[in-house]
Amino acid sequence: MTRGRFITFEGGEGAGKSTQVRRLVEDLRASGIDVVQTREPGGSTGAEAIRALVVSGEADRWSARTEALLMFASRSDHLEKTIRPALQAGSWVVCDRFADSSRAYQGAGGGAEPAFIEALERAVVGADQPDLTLILDLPVAVGLERALGRGQTDTRFESKGLAFHQRLRDGFGEIARRFPERCRMIDATGSPDDVYSRVRAVVDPIL
Amino acid sequence: MTRGRFITFEGGEGAGKSTQVRRLVEDLRASGIDVVQTREPGGSTGAEAIRALVVSGEADRWSARTEALLMFASRSDHLEKTIRPALQAGSWVVCDRFADSSRAYQGAGGGAEPAFIEALERAVVGADQPDLTLILDLPVAVGLERALGRGQTDTRFESKGLAFHQRLRDGFGEIARRFPERCRMIDATGSPDDVYSRVRAVVDPIL
Ligand SMILES: Nc1ncnc2c1ncn2[C@@H]1O[C@H](COP(=O)(O)OP(=O)(O)OP(=O)(O)O)[C@@H](O)[C@H]1O
Ligand SMILES: Nc1ncnc2c1ncn2[C@@H]1O[C@H](COP(=O)(O)OP(=O)(O)OP(=O)(O)O)[C@@H](O)[C@H]1O
Ligand SMILES: [Mg+2]
Ligand SMILES: [Mg+2]
Repeated sequence: MTRGRFITFEGGEGAGKSTQVRRLVEDLRASGIDVVQTREPGGSTGAEAIRALVVSGEADRWSARTEALLMFASRSDHLEKTIRPALQAGSWVVCDRFADSSRAYQGAGGGAEPAFIEALERAVVGADQPDLTLILDLPVAVGLERALGRGQTDTRFESKGLAFHQRLRDGFGEIARRFPERCRMIDATGSPDDVYSRVRAVVDPIL
Repeated sequence: MTRGRFITFEGGEGAGKSTQVRRLVEDLRASGIDVVQTREPGGSTGAEAIRALVVSGEADRWSARTEALLMFASRSDHLEKTIRPALQAGSWVVCDRFADSSRAYQGAGGGAEPAFIEALERAVVGADQPDLTLILDLPVAVGLERALGRGQTDTRFESKGLAFHQRLRDGFGEIARRFPERCRMIDATGSPDDVYSRVRAVVDPIL
């Protein structure tokens, strides 16, 4: 049994990750590939229970360090219960956010020390790196407008203020430069169709 | 302002930690010391919310690694919101369980690798080590009988089976040998009065 491919989507609020994940998964399935579609924080029963603690409540409910520990606790459960079993069974896994979101949100955005985040990443993710990470890049104001336009209720991260979201975007840019083999920056402006054709241009070569 | 003393109580289920903490805190207060009495997992609003995830549900709900991450997330919040502010204000802190419980429960008992637990301990606790740790030692069967006799409802750890609790007890013994400056083993057999006089024999020299 060949191990499946592991593809992650990253980017700030409202960049269009969930929209693009849905389209890609649909097309991969149509082409006969077995795909597990999942998301973080969450993606397994335990991880979804932890998610409830981090996506709701006051913006300053958790320090960046505590939040990182919670994110990696949920990631640990998600890897054990969902991601590793699927990849080992030969399925592809397409995940809406993964460890780079901790680097960007709790690290660059929240101010947790890089060494603290990287120690957690090594201990929890280790060798199970994504084969490909698509980082959807969009001006902060456009993303927040898209995200708040959805009218959802769990808006703890959306409520963190413009400066936070600008550090986030810069943080994702830095991640793309640090991991050039794995990461591709995708211009997320324009229509969902425009963005999706950029996504396919990156995914097709690994098909 | 002199930093307060930080005293932790450790030991398996039903060893008598909560009973002895209450008595010690009462007496320290009677002697004019300002004391914050607290417990883990929990001890701050965020940490108590995380506690709810770990003390209830099926025994195998979390892997030892995920459980350790949750425990250190709650510990991080507890340190930031309760323990460090109290010690800095000159209060003593007496805590029912602390990081040694992660070494014993998720490490020795649950099988998480020692290096994984120690990396979390360094990153989260760092220099904020207890000044004194009292490890209440009791045959496993006696402790479980005491604990189950209380008829509480959150019994996820109590339900883990005798072999687990024996590894726990051995784990605490090893912790006492590894940190001889900080840790004191207390024979927890006999009446609460018997045990308390052993506790005072260890605490009095630091008063
Ligand atoms: N290219 C696009 N142009 C305009 N609107 C878009 C585009 N892509 C997605 N949207 C809309 O913007 C909103 C946010 O999109 P989506 O939920 O996919 O973003 P996201 O990156 O998953 O956000 P979050 O980080 O909050 O989960 C949705 O209402 C979606 O329909
Ligand atoms: N020395 C003792 N002899 C007999 N019973 C005791 C003694 N100390 C405590 N108990 C009783 O045993 C039960 C467990 O004690 P306690 O709650 O203090 O233990 P604990 O170590 O805090 O347990 P847990 O790990 O479950 O929190 C309680 O009902 C308590 O009243
Ligand atoms: Mg989304
Ligand atoms: Mg107790």
